[in-house]
Amino acid sequence: MSVGNTFFKTAFSVDNVIFGFDNSSLKILLIKRAERPFKDYWALPGDLVFPDEDLDNAPKRVLKELTGLENVFLEQVATFGKTDRHPKGRVITVAYYSLVNIANVNPKAHSFANELAWHELSEIHTLAFDHMLIMQTCLQTLKSKVRTQPIGFELLPQKFTLSELQDLYEAVLGKPLDKRNFRKKILSLGVLLDQEEYQQGVAHRPAKLFQFDRHRYEEAKSMGYTFEV
Amino acid sequence: MSVGNTFFKTAFSVDNVIFGFDNSSLKILLIKRAERPFKDYWALPGDLVFPDEDLDNAPKRVLKELTGLENVFLEQVATFGKTDRHPKGRVITVAYYSLVNIANVNPKAHSFANELAWHELSEIHTLAFDHMLIMQTCLQTLKSKVRTQPIGFELLPQKFTLSELQDLYEAVLGKPLDKRNFRKKILSLGVLLDQEEYQQGVAHRPAKLFQFDRHRYEEAKSMGYTFEV
Repeated sequence: MSVGNTFFKTAFSVDNVIFGFDNSSLKILLIKRAERPFKDYWALPGDLVFPDEDLDNAPKRVLKELTGLENVFLEQVATFGKTDRHPKGRVITVAYYSLVNIANVNPKAHSFANELAWHELSEIHTLAFDHMLIMQTCLQTLKSKVRTQPIGFELLPQKFTLSELQDLYEAVLGKPLDKRNFRKKILSLGVLLDQEEYQQGVAHRPAKLFQFDRHRYEEAKSMGYTFEV
Repeated sequence: MSVGNTFFKTAFSVDNVIFGFDNSSLKILLIKRAERPFKDYWALPGDLVFPDEDLDNAPKRVLKELTGLENVFLEQVATFGKTDRHPKGRVITVAYYSLVNIANVNPKAHSFANELAWHELSEIHTLAFDHMLIMQTCLQTLKSKVRTQPIGFELLPQKFTLSELQDLYEAVLGKPLDKRNFRKKILSLGVLLDQEEYQQGVAHRPAKLFQFDRHRYEEAKSMGYTFEV
């Protein structure tokens, strides 16, 4: 390619914003960098994209290496490409976010990281590179999509109580919701299966368990149904 | 950078999906390629990103070169990076969409193109590279955002009739809307200024002109107002 000398000097990376929920707060999985630049800073997990690797495969590879998870919710959010975003060269990065059930994650140390841990979103104030901006952008996308698409369920166990679901929405949206209105609205959506089962081993009066009915949702959606919380 | 030899071999491009509306149909601006690959195919306008250019500046540069327009609606949509998407090397492309008032556009031939023209969306069946996929992705984004954000007004002249606004929504959403319900809903949003002016030089009874009140919208939005058509 005649323009090779001028243009083929950039690299791409992917960065993964992996959201989890632990029954009270929204968390993301961060690595502590073992190498310069930004040595010992917390950062989003990510990696350079291999020359022979489809872009959308790279975040799946990173997620699997870090957490062992496959086939979980993962979507591209935005691409960041300021010329000065990486001190060592021109690296454009594509950000993806995932929603995972924290209980399913067994974080393993990645070769780039000497430490890997869940962090509460509200407690993250500094990250390596432009990762604060990337994280905020993905959080805005989550906040906006959780109201109109049934993606919040990805963060919960398969069976959950209405209180757990409300806790999740409050954590994502960052504000309290009226209990009565929330229950009325969420049940009226018609996509929760009543499991006719109750919590076990809790100190308080056990609450009913529900499950998201994806089949019913997909069917209704094809007929123009809209999910809205 | 030690990984330079392996990774710094890719290039990025941007592709611009430039939407316009001509009072009856939704159109996009395409160029006919003068060079191989895909010589003589219609394609999305775009360019490689310069090594010293911030990513988000590249689509602004392309738009200005092609149309003379600056400071118009332009947003990043998605990034496409299959290994085989460009026959001449690894090129990852970032897609942006713009909404412009067709009357303001004075398309000039770009150095890459021997022809530049508006095409009706419904009449586009083949494009160079993976540009059909990119166009469809941007169209889906437009369809979804036009209902919840007041971006449709970007495609209209500053003053418009309610019929013109309805024609626009029908063209974007690809379906007819009930006239009475549409007017009721759009007026109830409280963001249209009645200009107390009428169309001029029309054969039928002149209709009233309206203008989108961005100031009122921004004020209401800051207090939790949501726009929804």
